[in-house]
Amino acid sequence: MKECKETIQISKAALARMPGYLIYLKNRRAEGVNFISSTVMAEDLKQNPVQVRKDLAVVSHCPGKPKLGFEIGGLISDIEDFLGYNNTSEAVIVGVGQLGKTLLSYGGFESYGLSIVAGFDARPDVAGKEWCGKKIFSVDRFSELVRRMNILIGIITVPKEQAQIVCDMMIDAGIRAIWNFAPAHLVIPEGIAVKNEDLAASLALLSKQLRDQLGK
Amino acid sequence: MKECKETIQISKAALARMPGYLIYLKNRRAEGVNFISSTVMAEDLKQNPVQVRKDLAVVSHCPGKPKLGFEIGGLISDIEDFLGYNNTSEAVIVGVGQLGKTLLSYGGFESYGLSIVAGFDARPDVAGKEWCGKKIFSVDRFSELVRRMNILIGIITVPKEQAQIVCDMMIDAGIRAIWNFAPAHLVIPEGIAVKNEDLAASLALLSKQLRDQLGK
Repeated sequence: MKECKETIQISKAALARMPGYLIYLKNRRAEGVNFISSTVMAEDLKQNPVQVRKDLAVVSHCPGKPKLGFEIGGLISDIEDFLGYNNTSEAVIVGVGQLGKTLLSYGGFESYGLSIVAGFDARPDVAGKEWCGKKIFSVDRFSELVRRMNILIGIITVPKEQAQIVCDMMIDAGIRAIWNFAPAHLVIPEGIAVKNEDLAASLALLSKQLRDQLGK
Repeated sequence: MKECKETIQISKAALARMPGYLIYLKNRRAEGVNFISSTVMAEDLKQNPVQVRKDLAVVSHCPGKPKLGFEIGGLISDIEDFLGYNNTSEAVIVGVGQLGKTLLSYGGFESYGLSIVAGFDARPDVAGKEWCGKKIFSVDRFSELVRRMNILIGIITVPKEQAQIVCDMMIDAGIRAIWNFAPAHLVIPEGIAVKNEDLAASLALLSKQLRDQLGK
């Protein structure tokens, strides 16, 4: 995540204006507008231009360009970062079998500032328990909890037969990036980041590399 | 592995000549020779040229080229395949913790004709047990058993502090391909196939991809 300016003093009133800016900016972007000035924004939103300029200065990482104004995509991203919408460091896992447990207890993610914060499982004897201090919930609560925790990364470690169902459930719940360990080809809409981790294919590639070397 | 001709009838005497061919061919290759005819081989080895030609026809996948003879590298590989030296489908794992157990019990390898045949661990409470029908041995027996089972692929799932020691032990025991899950940079001699599987880096990459998409 980009450096956050959350420690900067901001009035409650300014904070309350941010979601309005966000909706406005997304609409303008959808209309094909790429740059916008605080003056135009203030006019459109019927707000004080000095106030709008001040608000944007607090959240924005890039100063607006003279004459052009702010790059809309960057400004949207900055406001979302500021509001904590862009949680790119926490993930949840669905399927707390052997592999799911391995990932839940894997220590290596911390060095990248990442963490798997909870697990979900459909089996009643697994849901409700804990693993290495991480709670395991019933999949029935997936959408509710993921939205509440504002999680955008989902990890699939269910058997391949259930992978597409889990994938669809994740996307419905607002997940934007999927790390898939099930050896299944997932149908995923555009705009969702995906990384397929096929362990068997990895070993098969190594075996192939070995054969090539031995054949030399 | 290439299609084996093990079902082809071959006399015990012919089989017993193969290791001699192998040593001879490796020496010639080391001298920089790339092609060799059965006639030259027979002369050098003081054997019957008809017999040598017959022997090579049994094991070789590629007929010799007129005037040039057999490509030495291919012939070496064919004889090694024939003798079962080139086992590229079986692997062993060192480090039977959470991740090691996951891989030992992972069903997906079979579809590639691959299998992890045994595990090794230094801990006395782990070694001597079984996991999903696979035996777990003490690492003390690694070299002996790996040579006996003719295993060429080793999987490292020990903590990163022990990864290099395990890697060196594997190479000493004849392992030719290493699948490393420890987040450690391994020093590995040339000619050994390596695949580093850094799970944390995979998730970090996905998180980066997500950030890039959100910033669009």
